Amino acid sequence: MTGARTDVEQVERANTAFYEALERGDFDEVSDLWLDTGTRDALDEDDAVDSSDEETAISCVHPGWPVLTGRGEVLRSYALIMANTEYIQFFLTDVHVGVAGDTALVTCTENILSGGPPPEGGGELGPLVGQLVVATNVFRRTSDGWKLWSHHASPVLAETDDEEGEESPS
Amino acid sequence: MTGARTDVEQVERANTAFYEALERGDFDEVSDLWLDTGTRDALDEDDAVDSSDEETAISCVHPGWPVLTGRGEVLRSYALIMANTEYIQFFLTDVHVGVAGDTALVTCTENILSGGPPPEGGGELGPLVGQLVVATNVFRRTSDGWKLWSHHASPVLAETDDEEGEESPS
Repeated sequence: MTGARTDVEQVERANTAFYEALERGDFDEVSDLWLDTGTRDALDEDDAVDSSDEETAISCVHPGWPVLTGRGEVLRSYALIMANTEYIQFFLTDVHVGVAGDTALVTCTENILSGGPPPEGGGELGPLVGQLVVATNVFRRTSDGWKLWSHHASPVLAETDDEEGEESPS
Repeated sequence: MTGARTDVEQVERANTAFYEALERGDFDEVSDLWLDTGTRDALDEDDAVDSSDEETAISCVHPGWPVLTGRGEVLRSYALIMANTEYIQFFLTDVHVGVAGDTALVTCTENILSGGPPPEGGGELGPLVGQLVVATNVFRRTSDGWKLWSHHASPVLAETDDEEGEESPS
């Protein structure tokens, strides 16, 4: 990593690395890219906690899912998704990076192509499915680079992303 | 506001104030609660911009919508939603607040009850609709209090928010 890289470039690389790790099904890399605040959030996997004791618990929303909070819940969800995904590719568009102090906010469109495991009779892949998803990813600057604090992804159900006065969702 | 209030309490109040302003249809208050980085983002309403020139452009995702970026797009969307909403109430649950430096991350479940304008023949309200939505709200600390940098809301399509080993969405 060259010293001349700007914050925005570094954040964009971290964001890209996250999706590439998902494409490879690289669970260790995905785990490493999520903020690790030590063991603090291991205690609250099943409780909503708002004490200032664990100020940076990670959170994650997959498309259509409720909020997952803490490394336990979040990483288990990725293990589950990886186990049920034979193939996944993200074509990122509309990537927008903002940085303020030690926090970065990335919005992007995830054009997803994915397939499940092969059907029972064998074969190569389950049917490929395309999905249009938008994501807001929040990163924190750490001594080990930019790490994900929050990922929120959701399906785009409206028919347009051009705002020309008729942007009401159908 | 007492000086003894913690960051977490202040953020939770800002988050509550945002939903209360939406319930009242108070456009000025909603505008005031969104981060205002001056005129910088007035230039980029129709372009995805990642220059470090406008590092804190606001972004907003309504359930099922694409990403809206910049105060122009975001505030227009609220004007549009308010024009088409006669009644809306948010019952917030699972509110989780994290604070790191001058950034705060709030996740919550928005249990929404809303109704459109009355039908043509008159009457009081359009039909009431319930919606289960989860949100990730990012706030920045400013001299004028905590302001929204990003709001991402999405419909919950899975049937459970209890993670007991069967959390696969249907």
